[in-house]
Amino acid sequence: MSHFLKNRIKPREINKRASVKAIVEAMGNSAFQGKNISLAHDIWVKMLKDNTTILFGLAGALVPAGMRGIIAYLVKNRFIDCLVSTGANLFHDCHETLGRFHFQGSHEVDDIKLFEKGIDRIYDVFASEKEFRKTDDFIKNWAKGLNPEFVSGKRAITTREFLYRLGEKLSKVSKIEGILTSAYKANVPVYCPAIGDSSIGIALAAGRAEGSSEIQFDLIKDVLETAEIVSRSKSTGVIYVGGGTPKNFIQQTEVTASIISDSVSDGHKYAIQITADSPHWGGLSGCTFKEAQSWGKIARDARSVSLHSDATIALPIIATAVAGSFNVKRRKIPQFILKGDLKMTAPRT
Amino acid sequence: MSHFLKNRIKPREINKRASVKAIVEAMGNSAFQGKNISLAHDIWVKMLKDNTTILFGLAGALVPAGMRGIIAYLVKNRFIDCLVSTGANLFHDCHETLGRFHFQGSHEVDDIKLFEKGIDRIYDVFASEKEFRKTDDFIKNWAKGLNPEFVSGKRAITTREFLYRLGEKLSKVSKIEGILTSAYKANVPVYCPAIGDSSIGIALAAGRAEGSSEIQFDLIKDVLETAEIVSRSKSTGVIYVGGGTPKNFIQQTEVTASIISDSVSDGHKYAIQITADSPHWGGLSGCTFKEAQSWGKIARDARSVSLHSDATIALPIIATAVAGSFNVKRRKIPQFILKGDLKMTAPRT
Amino acid sequence: MSHFLKNRIKPREINKRASVKAIVEAMGNSAFQGKNISLAHDIWVKMLKDNTTILFGLAGALVPAGMRGIIAYLVKNRFIDCLVSTGANLFHDCHETLGRFHFQGSHEVDDIKLFEKGIDRIYDVFASEKEFRKTDDFIKNWAKGLNPEFVSGKRAITTREFLYRLGEKLSKVSKIEGILTSAYKANVPVYCPAIGDSSIGIALAAGRAEGSSEIQFDLIKDVLETAEIVSRSKSTGVIYVGGGTPKNFIQQTEVTASIISDSVSDGHKYAIQITADSPHWGGLSGCTFKEAQSWGKIARDARSVSLHSDATIALPIIATAVAGSFNVKRRKIPQFILKGDLKMTAPRT
Amino acid sequence: MSHFLKNRIKPREINKRASVKAIVEAMGNSAFQGKNISLAHDIWVKMLKDNTTILFGLAGALVPAGMRGIIAYLVKNRFIDCLVSTGANLFHDCHETLGRFHFQGSHEVDDIKLFEKGIDRIYDVFASEKEFRKTDDFIKNWAKGLNPEFVSGKRAITTREFLYRLGEKLSKVSKIEGILTSAYKANVPVYCPAIGDSSIGIALAAGRAEGSSEIQFDLIKDVLETAEIVSRSKSTGVIYVGGGTPKNFIQQTEVTASIISDSVSDGHKYAIQITADSPHWGGLSGCTFKEAQSWGKIARDARSVSLHSDATIALPIIATAVAGSFNVKRRKIPQFILKGDLKMTAPRT
Repeated sequence: MSHFLKNRIKPREINKRASVKAIVEAMGNSAFQGKNISLAHDIWVKMLKDNTTILFGLAGALVPAGMRGIIAYLVKNRFIDCLVSTGANLFHDCHETLGRFHFQGSHEVDDIKLFEKGIDRIYDVFASEKEFRKTDDFIKNWAKGLNPEFVSGKRAITTREFLYRLGEKLSKVSKIEGILTSAYKANVPVYCPAIGDSSIGIALAAGRAEGSSEIQFDLIKDVLETAEIVSRSKSTGVIYVGGGTPKNFIQQTEVTASIISDSVSDGHKYAIQITADSPHWGGLSGCTFKEAQSWGKIARDARSVSLHSDATIALPIIATAVAGSFNVKRRKIPQFILKGDLKMTAPRT
Repeated sequence: MSHFLKNRIKPREINKRASVKAIVEAMGNSAFQGKNISLAHDIWVKMLKDNTTILFGLAGALVPAGMRGIIAYLVKNRFIDCLVSTGANLFHDCHETLGRFHFQGSHEVDDIKLFEKGIDRIYDVFASEKEFRKTDDFIKNWAKGLNPEFVSGKRAITTREFLYRLGEKLSKVSKIEGILTSAYKANVPVYCPAIGDSSIGIALAAGRAEGSSEIQFDLIKDVLETAEIVSRSKSTGVIYVGGGTPKNFIQQTEVTASIISDSVSDGHKYAIQITADSPHWGGLSGCTFKEAQSWGKIARDARSVSLHSDATIALPIIATAVAGSFNVKRRKIPQFILKGDLKMTAPRT
Repeated sequence: MSHFLKNRIKPREINKRASVKAIVEAMGNSAFQGKNISLAHDIWVKMLKDNTTILFGLAGALVPAGMRGIIAYLVKNRFIDCLVSTGANLFHDCHETLGRFHFQGSHEVDDIKLFEKGIDRIYDVFASEKEFRKTDDFIKNWAKGLNPEFVSGKRAITTREFLYRLGEKLSKVSKIEGILTSAYKANVPVYCPAIGDSSIGIALAAGRAEGSSEIQFDLIKDVLETAEIVSRSKSTGVIYVGGGTPKNFIQQTEVTASIISDSVSDGHKYAIQITADSPHWGGLSGCTFKEAQSWGKIARDARSVSLHSDATIALPIIATAVAGSFNVKRRKIPQFILKGDLKMTAPRT
Repeated sequence: MSHFLKNRIKPREINKRASVKAIVEAMGNSAFQGKNISLAHDIWVKMLKDNTTILFGLAGALVPAGMRGIIAYLVKNRFIDCLVSTGANLFHDCHETLGRFHFQGSHEVDDIKLFEKGIDRIYDVFASEKEFRKTDDFIKNWAKGLNPEFVSGKRAITTREFLYRLGEKLSKVSKIEGILTSAYKANVPVYCPAIGDSSIGIALAAGRAEGSSEIQFDLIKDVLETAEIVSRSKSTGVIYVGGGTPKNFIQQTEVTASIISDSVSDGHKYAIQITADSPHWGGLSGCTFKEAQSWGKIARDARSVSLHSDATIALPIIATAVAGSFNVKRRKIPQFILKGDLKMTAPRT
């Protein structure tokens, strides 16, 4: 029989006591996106065993949707080594770490009434605008107390250092384990390439307007640092939850590294994306890893999977299965450390 | 605090030993489609406890994708009471029940080469065209041996009776538990409104062309019978995996029942759909249950959820969780029975 | 420069007086789905010039959405030669041809209130349930008057002949040009593989319930006839608006024809689909024409395009451009004719 | 008859000589997204007549897909008053303005081979990596020649001023009309909130690595300026092509303005989005304007439409129709001007 017809699909009965890990493995015998969820698990475990540096891109309103605990777990246990996020997710992480909440709501509701009640809606999540403004104020007031060089705008700060300091502050005022506090403790660098484009940006704009701070972000150093993380790493793997700025920012590290070192890009060696987007619209968020191979962003022999699913389904399931599969107490941590105001060093030659 | 802000989203850590049932329940504290997967579980369990008649619509190439075992389990254990399917899924069920296979492949492949090798592709599933033709032949030859009234076309046969007889035959020649064999044994009626539109139709067309059978399907009796199932039931619930003909056929039972009995439609009392489609394209497959309420197809106080997910992810997870939650040995079976050539009786008055 | 870099994208300024034909041609210099809309136009024109038999599959609520006039035009002018439709579209065509209407509404509305007012919603289209029931009654009553052999169920009727007779009737009672009346006049065969699954089916079920008719549909003859249309044609082209039963039914003609004639399938030579679905869900509605090539349903050298767009945007634009481009008074009509109760003849050998 | 049933859908025949404007108007009598394309046209024309300040968010690879000419036209003729873009679109605009090209390719291709040939793929668009690097170098070298305060990083530059200067430079070295050159000439401010996340960022990182420039972007001033544009405007309207950072950045202007001025947000008065995303994934890119009303980002009485379509189809058609409908020689330009290094002034009180 043809070599195309080797791996039989194995239709399975239901095992009503199955663990998440077991069902994910069983899905590996199916097809379509069910198979892909299993493949995502396999690739993630492989990355961990290979001691690959794992860069994780986070877009979409996942913290409001209840994913903070899972992402914090991934950070804390070094299932990921570098996080690139939208500003919104980090703002919402602050919000929850400060003891405030998001609420279950409905997408079928009178939004004018919500506005009148001071409630902001994110699909079927509700939150209090007043409470959000308290978190705005927290960020604004904390930023005033940063190193005067930063506050005066004399020296620009990377988003990584800014968020590291914010994680430090949060871990002092709260016992709740958030993403930023976990990242601070685990020395996982967090970048936010569009930090102005979020409530963090709004808070800092309010600080600027009232004359209390003049913070400047060193975006280009963010670009260089992430390229350096890639350059210094034995190999890199990427996990994208949603697309947007975080995905592109991580993808471009390979190009930046190759330009700076004037060498051919190796490409990321492992790649997982969980997306609700499609390739045929032509945008970056839905594009395939094959396309990325033409750019040298993904290695020619990379193991990759594009999983088409809402992340609120796929992320908890995959992360739980990965945690069940990777039975090492403490993951050996890749050999780069980016603390505080670390100076840039020359990229790998 | 506002009554809109009552149910806190509960961001959870990872429990790496969680069962499927446990993670589905935990997802109930999140949002977006993660919450909906949990809601689908809750509604299904409620239907079962309420002794509701459950009609299940099946579209999309789910049997080739490895879902036969799960659907057979649902039928066998009466987690569903009536199945409406595309012809393709039933053909592929025959194929597997006869000991043939679908295979794991890839969607990135040279399809011309596959054609030359006699391999048919369904996204990332491969199968042998030659083997498919054996299943065609099985159906064609079996059909010749049906009751002569049917074979001659003198009496039309409902798709339900045709598929019941096919299940009977399959259960005699194979020990493999398929959908049709399980349905035969569990007395779960199976309808296929577009039976000509599938390899079953092709097989019967080949039989007609060679003069061996003249089978006619009594489509309108299918319509009446399903309306009667609804009329005779205390209450009905619907589960749609994909849209297409099966969804519409089940939805319209409420309208048919109301027209025949000249009464106002009650609407289905419970409703779950797992769909990869969207409402904004205007089609039936992606339409919401709210829209269906305007037609009286869904009850005004129905409990319903539209879950946006690939069924190869959602169905195994939900079905496993439901099996874990509904701990009754044998479900009390709703009070209609449709065996063999059952005559139509008057609908409930 | 590489042969990959030959056709420059030509960014164009706006020509505010452009015709539809001109803008469609200009889009041919762009990319993504804009390019595909232009390609769909090109392929359709090529089919017409090549005197190819064009089979058109129609799914989704396009008649309620205002597309009746366009589809009737395509039929009348033989821009298509065979129509396969969902039952719903044909029911809604009847409804409008009888002088009744669909209305512009909104998808953000209280559906319970609509139900109470007797208004049915199809996304943002409203219609009167009472008026729909008049159209039901028209079909039910007309069906009683068909040839007694059909009414008694003694002889099964193809959906083609049934719809031909219905078109004949409608063209007698109304001057409005609908799809069925145009098809009747232009001798374009119309098939409806899931005719029971629609208000036509409900109307006939009501007739059966009250004892006024026992109509049986000869689904298998539908399968054979469409295979024969393909067999007798020099070449075939397909246009799918939406997926579902119509798409599969037309796709399978190639397989049926090859099985009956025991020859290798040629495959359709031209193929256009307008779809809002995606391949990665694995279903037939979103599958690519490459996948169809593995089955032999699409010719290995076919010209094809999958256009990802809502049909209410793409169909009017493409059809208008095609009408502008194909400047022949009267298209030479392909050499098959299927009128009334035409007997099956042997397929091409 | 019910007031719900007032506006009849008007099924129209094909007018093969129709202009784009005429077909867009005719689509206003249909439903689903066809109706929405017409509505988008109506709202845009209304904005123009109302002398509203129009903010345009641009995401997705639209310049590579051939949309540069259209967007440049919109800028030049002040059909929009402020542009917020991804960095990639502006980089690709530079590339084309410098006389380089994007090419028509295919999404079904061997990407490893493309990589070996130095060709980058964006869905079905190809481009030369070597040529891209020339554009990188152009940006890097030009940046060295900016005002020494900026080059040294002593003073941070807004992305608006940076892009204004870049437009100035491009208009000196090229006669090709690009987006940045048109914006420079028409005094339309252009913002790029994630400027590091693009080849512009890579170019500047290369400059930093070689020690030739230390440019810092004043992201927070971008936030303040855009809030001020909104504050100073009589009313604002938004047009989003794609989602991502540009959409959120424009949406948040209302919140920033309300926080700074300690007043209730009015919300944008007009809103159009062209999106291929869906609301049910919970992200900002696909969210509805109703959701945005809960936040006060969109006015309670706003006229808005979410159009689900690929922008390469919808944008050329709508823009052409708008240009055809708005017959004023020169649009009266809203009363804010942001040139060069304009100082922030107090927001409207």
